Amino acid sequence: MAEGNDVFDVIVIGAGPVGENAAARVVHGGLTAAVVEERLVGGECNYYACVPSKALLWPMELATEVDRMPGLGLRGPIEAPAVFARRDEVVSHFDDSGYVNWLEKLPATFVRGRGRLAGPLRVDVAVPEGGTRSLSARHAVVLATGSAPAIPDVPGLREARPWTNREATSTRQTPKRLIVIGGGPVACEMTQALHALGAVESTVLVREDRLLTRTEPFAGELVARSLAESGIDLRFGRSLARVERQANGGPVMVQTDDGSRFEADEILVATGRRLGVYDIGLETVGMRPDGPIEVDASMRATAVPDGWLYAVGDVNGLNLLTHMGKYQARICGDVIAARAHGRTDDLPSLRDRADALGAPQVIFTDPQVCAVGRTEAQARADGFRTRIVDHDIGAIVGAQLQVPGYVGRARLVVDEDRRVLLGATFVGPAAADLLHGATIAVSAEIPLEKLWHAVPTFPTTSEIWLNLLQEYGL
Amino acid sequence: MAEGNDVFDVIVIGAGPVGENAAARVVHGGLTAAVVEERLVGGECNYYACVPSKALLWPMELATEVDRMPGLGLRGPIEAPAVFARRDEVVSHFDDSGYVNWLEKLPATFVRGRGRLAGPLRVDVAVPEGGTRSLSARHAVVLATGSAPAIPDVPGLREARPWTNREATSTRQTPKRLIVIGGGPVACEMTQALHALGAVESTVLVREDRLLTRTEPFAGELVARSLAESGIDLRFGRSLARVERQANGGPVMVQTDDGSRFEADEILVATGRRLGVYDIGLETVGMRPDGPIEVDASMRATAVPDGWLYAVGDVNGLNLLTHMGKYQARICGDVIAARAHGRTDDLPSLRDRADALGAPQVIFTDPQVCAVGRTEAQARADGFRTRIVDHDIGAIVGAQLQVPGYVGRARLVVDEDRRVLLGATFVGPAAADLLHGATIAVSAEIPLEKLWHAVPTFPTTSEIWLNLLQEYGL
Repeated sequence: MAEGNDVFDVIVIGAGPVGENAAARVVHGGLTAAVVEERLVGGECNYYACVPSKALLWPMELATEVDRMPGLGLRGPIEAPAVFARRDEVVSHFDDSGYVNWLEKLPATFVRGRGRLAGPLRVDVAVPEGGTRSLSARHAVVLATGSAPAIPDVPGLREARPWTNREATSTRQTPKRLIVIGGGPVACEMTQALHALGAVESTVLVREDRLLTRTEPFAGELVARSLAESGIDLRFGRSLARVERQANGGPVMVQTDDGSRFEADEILVATGRRLGVYDIGLETVGMRPDGPIEVDASMRATAVPDGWLYAVGDVNGLNLLTHMGKYQARICGDVIAARAHGRTDDLPSLRDRADALGAPQVIFTDPQVCAVGRTEAQARADGFRTRIVDHDIGAIVGAQLQVPGYVGRARLVVDEDRRVLLGATFVGPAAADLLHGATIAVSAEIPLEKLWHAVPTFPTTSEIWLNLLQEYGL
Repeated sequence: MAEGNDVFDVIVIGAGPVGENAAARVVHGGLTAAVVEERLVGGECNYYACVPSKALLWPMELATEVDRMPGLGLRGPIEAPAVFARRDEVVSHFDDSGYVNWLEKLPATFVRGRGRLAGPLRVDVAVPEGGTRSLSARHAVVLATGSAPAIPDVPGLREARPWTNREATSTRQTPKRLIVIGGGPVACEMTQALHALGAVESTVLVREDRLLTRTEPFAGELVARSLAESGIDLRFGRSLARVERQANGGPVMVQTDDGSRFEADEILVATGRRLGVYDIGLETVGMRPDGPIEVDASMRATAVPDGWLYAVGDVNGLNLLTHMGKYQARICGDVIAARAHGRTDDLPSLRDRADALGAPQVIFTDPQVCAVGRTEAQARADGFRTRIVDHDIGAIVGAQLQVPGYVGRARLVVDEDRRVLLGATFVGPAAADLLHGATIAVSAEIPLEKLWHAVPTFPTTSEIWLNLLQEYGL
């Protein structure tokens, strides 16, 4: 084993928010860490996903709220250049030096380059200057290689150089005519954001028969209604047959399996993610990149002997959400430190509880979709004796005061045997921060009888909790 | 005892939200109920307090958020007439027939008039037509007589016919020059609302040396800074010496104890509440109106033998907040029904837990102040081994995305012996719905180690939870 500068207690491959958190906890636990990243430190999330998309979406949300509020009016449509400028600011103008400094101050060693496993506890980094730097780890290697947008295999699609979340969130110009492929969170969010920023003719082609298929059906319905009302053309049950772009930068033609043809200035593909399991040397440790890297509740890859390999974030396939990856990273970093120091490694804080319960997620569409835990369908499929309770958020005085004409809906999914929440969904404007109460309730498995004594404040939208519990029969 | 139409299982005096809820639960429990109200059914809260004030405040909040968001701009200042019109709408144009119908559909019997106790289980109602209608109850009388604005004993003040929350929330015109007496929630909310609606010269005279003295000190500081920045003149440590209004509708002159003089077009007094214990016949059942009506955890007045008298809402002095009164009313209604039917009356759902823990409250100022449980000072005074954890909400990416330049602060108050939350405070724009998670955590006494697995969603303001818990050392 090489010694000297290139030996660390822990090597983290990938410096998105997940890798950063793993490194921070490892260092906090008294170990040394190297962090390897080929692209921008800060990761997809900070530059090309969660963060810039919300910079594009909040103005839309706010504009909608103003439209609904008597006594207020906007001086005109959203000014796209100013929104793009603000987006540039929140992504630090695509400059990662702030994050690099943060890493180095942990302190951790930052190694710029493409990292690949090179056998147990070894990582080779193809550095930008050329050549390879070989690192080795005393205790653990953490894979936090995330994911990238997947481009489906459709004739002509790749050649048409479609937009993915990366181009959509980093654009400085809005295409006038836009076609979006997909019906998940990214498709819904970016369609609305770009429509609000000037994509006057927006068409969404969805393979499924509804939007947001992983959430409660009413969520997708409310978002679909909102999209349609704003003039976005939604087509369900359509698969791509062929895509053609004659000239670079010219219009793109899309043909669907029923023979329909659509033309636009740009096409955005949001049909899923390709996990970062390829070209990271899994074969050097006896694994194959044929899916997510399976981990135990301490984030240790189960397929590798001696337990030195960990995988956190998208790459383990548990929940492709930044906050879940960061959560896993905290656990992973702490458990590695505990094991390295020979301390007890099975405390509750060192085991992932949240992923199995159903990750919280907020989709920043109008209406916002906020969900945690299991949907009704998931709860039933998992064999729980399930009861659902629905309530109209628009019936809540606090919601109407905040957003006149509030349209929204909430659902609790109750485990009737234990009388605890299995899941909750809130759909409506300005709903994002409604969720965390439900996340606490689901995660801590608080009996409904105890939730009954958590009095929501009048007049806030949170009073939906009271109505839901009353509806349940409390 | 009179029989016939005027005998009910339960008589509720007061038909604000609290009395309404008591009646609803009583009826739901299979009993008959009469509800007596002299003023508008729906109560102070719906017509002259929480509801109209929020109709006046949300436009201000939204306008401030727009000001902070690049790419959006308002076409002009808040249009006060439109806001007043919307306020009229949310108070049903001061027409209570909707609430009366709701009561009658429970079904409960509504009796319009002034209700007074007339001995055990008896209520005399002075009806508007003149004369008295005598009601009697088989099981219980519930006092839900609320409170009214208190006018301090200052020479000339009463004669000057000052505004209280009632006039301030129901006004159709904004005084150009406004003096506000008080530094509590009503004073802060209404000063900001009226200032945003056109009170160009606003002065607040506060007896104490800070605003919002029942909340964490930083809450009052942040609100004071915001008031001052918007041009409101705050004077601390000032008591009223004398008030003079020469002509009805003319200017009002205020002199403070240090000899300063202030002149304005209107004066708003927001210095506290006078509990509804006077002129309700307490002396007929051996009680004196010398303070709140003391109740046990089932809302039963402790001073009356045979346990037939209950008091809910402001009148029991526990927490003068609509949602707490409604909570007490649910308990009270259920416990009365349980006792009337000879069912077990000591289930956890039939005992008030929440009031003693510290009521949640949202003050809809800019910044919003949201607090639940004990402040640091209260926790220490109550003898808890207390640790506080503070964090800047402006450091949260989600908060910055929602409100650029977000300024706000959060605090957790931890009981170090049990490692549970005793209290939480969030101060910042758009913070109202952050609170309920804390209310659940405080109320259900969830150990911090469990809260650690409640993953806040990225990028929402709720991620403040993660930073607070990390700051604590998790």
